Amino acid sequence: MSTRFSDRMRSMKPSTIREMLKMTERPDVISFAGGLPAPELFPVDDIRVAAERVLVEAGAQAFQYGVTQGIAPLREQIAVEMADRGIACDADDILITTGSQQGLDLVGKIFIDAGDAILTENPTYLAAIQSFQCFQARFQAVPTDDEGIIPEAVGELAAQTRFRFLYVIPNFQNPTGRSLSLARRHRLMDIARRHDLTIIEDDPYGRLRYRGEHLPPLKSLDTDGRVIYLSTFSKTVAPGFRTAWAVATKDVLDKLIIAKQAADLHTSSFDQLVLDRYLRDFDNRKHVARVCAAYGERYGVMADALAAQMPEGFSWTQPEGGMFLWMTGPEGFDTLPLFRRAIEHGVAFVPGGDFFVGDEGRQCLRLNFSNAQPDDIRRGIERLAGLCRDSLGN
Amino acid sequence: MSTRFSDRMRSMKPSTIREMLKMTERPDVISFAGGLPAPELFPVDDIRVAAERVLVEAGAQAFQYGVTQGIAPLREQIAVEMADRGIACDADDILITTGSQQGLDLVGKIFIDAGDAILTENPTYLAAIQSFQCFQARFQAVPTDDEGIIPEAVGELAAQTRFRFLYVIPNFQNPTGRSLSLARRHRLMDIARRHDLTIIEDDPYGRLRYRGEHLPPLKSLDTDGRVIYLSTFSKTVAPGFRTAWAVATKDVLDKLIIAKQAADLHTSSFDQLVLDRYLRDFDNRKHVARVCAAYGERYGVMADALAAQMPEGFSWTQPEGGMFLWMTGPEGFDTLPLFRRAIEHGVAFVPGGDFFVGDEGRQCLRLNFSNAQPDDIRRGIERLAGLCRDSLGN
Repeated sequence: MSTRFSDRMRSMKPSTIREMLKMTERPDVISFAGGLPAPELFPVDDIRVAAERVLVEAGAQAFQYGVTQGIAPLREQIAVEMADRGIACDADDILITTGSQQGLDLVGKIFIDAGDAILTENPTYLAAIQSFQCFQARFQAVPTDDEGIIPEAVGELAAQTRFRFLYVIPNFQNPTGRSLSLARRHRLMDIARRHDLTIIEDDPYGRLRYRGEHLPPLKSLDTDGRVIYLSTFSKTVAPGFRTAWAVATKDVLDKLIIAKQAADLHTSSFDQLVLDRYLRDFDNRKHVARVCAAYGERYGVMADALAAQMPEGFSWTQPEGGMFLWMTGPEGFDTLPLFRRAIEHGVAFVPGGDFFVGDEGRQCLRLNFSNAQPDDIRRGIERLAGLCRDSLGN
Repeated sequence: MSTRFSDRMRSMKPSTIREMLKMTERPDVISFAGGLPAPELFPVDDIRVAAERVLVEAGAQAFQYGVTQGIAPLREQIAVEMADRGIACDADDILITTGSQQGLDLVGKIFIDAGDAILTENPTYLAAIQSFQCFQARFQAVPTDDEGIIPEAVGELAAQTRFRFLYVIPNFQNPTGRSLSLARRHRLMDIARRHDLTIIEDDPYGRLRYRGEHLPPLKSLDTDGRVIYLSTFSKTVAPGFRTAWAVATKDVLDKLIIAKQAADLHTSSFDQLVLDRYLRDFDNRKHVARVCAAYGERYGVMADALAAQMPEGFSWTQPEGGMFLWMTGPEGFDTLPLFRRAIEHGVAFVPGGDFFVGDEGRQCLRLNFSNAQPDDIRRGIERLAGLCRDSLGN
């Protein structure tokens, strides 16, 4: 039989990198490639107690169909957490999503028609590109530097073209680890207002700050409801629950809810209840502080090892939180052949090209430091630095 | 600020019925409106034991990111269940989805471009219409009668237009409760072959048969990989897990996996593990037999009450399984004003219009019998029959 797929699937190829990354699961490979939180830090014992309480107390209702927006007690707790981040909202302004990934999918659905232009950082989160590609968006990259995207560049682009939205990860961006500076946050909001631009603020990593002070989310500076804020429990509790949320004004939230109803009816009732109970009965702030301490230590080990070992011509970002740093090799350096050799030598990273909308980033690579032990980080960077030196010598 | 949504959202209005149905949650209302399985039959004690075992044994891995296709042990068990239904496949041919609703969303994504035509039963599952509307499908209704869709009508339509697929619920269809007869299953597959037509077979209710013999799924008659089969644990275990599956050939499954990765990365690791453990350690077939016995009894009570009480001019389907029956009033009868009066009098159903692609079905209504106790069924039907008599008298 002849199967014809939709046009959108033609642009959605399986990532070659993702295929290669399967090789990094070999036990002899020290992997800086994934984007996994450290499972040994998950609050498993507390989750177990919370789950047992739900199983005893909620009974059958834990397994029945639920409302699309998500269970009210969990949304109420998220509203409190939002206030803590400087975002004034209540439970009605929140939609529970099946991971932040679903938030991206729903945002794509409600805003993007085929051929519509959107603005993104470049490089940006690989799976956001995929989500928006699925709705046949045209991508326009915004110039960035060490302080994140340049607001004036957004203004210049928005003056020429009507963009459906700007997608931005202001805190410890994936893949670069960079954060948008405070001054730029304010300027970006001014420019967005001037050009009537919708902003999708993706903030999975914001709470994972191990140095410096928290910066206000764009949503907290939003006076006219143009920011849709996405965040998740994946990095502050655990990703396996696939439980995250979106905060938006009523007109947008109503559309997101309609789109979610068609997408999966609602997020797992059981997972929502267990998370709700866990957050009520245990001190998740303490838990996040422990995670930050561990990630901060791991980042420090990686930064020291890089400083000690990497040959000249390589530079890397110095994030104050999150899970990634971003390295740039000398002009003409290609991280794709390096990746193949690195796997053979038992160390893995993600080559930079896949994070770019266009054909860029070949001399870049992403390193994850959240899911490796300090000793492994030292050994892994030693291997990587050796291979980089060899590459330059060739 | 001015928010502009995508074109697809214009056709995706919140169902007015769904809004009205909120009123049916009043405790004094006997509701035949929902599509809920009976929570008092959920195997809660066994699920509790399974969850506790997962929490103790799987530890942190129960909460880590997982692969998009779904955990292998669960897919292996589904393959065994599929063999039991006459469908030969292995774990590699299966994708775990976040409810069957996600299966519909993914199918829409990989097949439908804006304006593409698809074939559906009429009436059909409300939320499937929503999912496919989201990708701006054009709907073509296939004539149906008491044996389900008429295969020759599919052939005539397919000879004139190229359809992306036929969407069909062969067992105890939602909303009618009708099943596609054995002879028609064979003829439909012949016609699909002749016209190179892809079939989406949605089978959430097939195991809920309380009378007669199981009929072979279309997928079991599929010799050239044109059927994509969707099923779920929502009705045989519990819906709150949002765990379901799709069976398809490799080329289709690969596309579904890419689309799912962009949609929510993967279905909850914890839920998949708990379901896997439950299915391994307990006898779910026995559980399904208990559910069938209870639903069969409730159906019988409703059928008897309808036969005893309904005024002349009304007819209804006599399903051999599932959760719904479908009633048709006399010519010109309108179930929308009846619905409003019924709510006031403490009984609820779903008016038929929303299940139709076009402007039909005003004299029809759907009754759910799985989630009410026999006494409530008798009292509810008495109320409903009285209101129908009053309506005819006016």
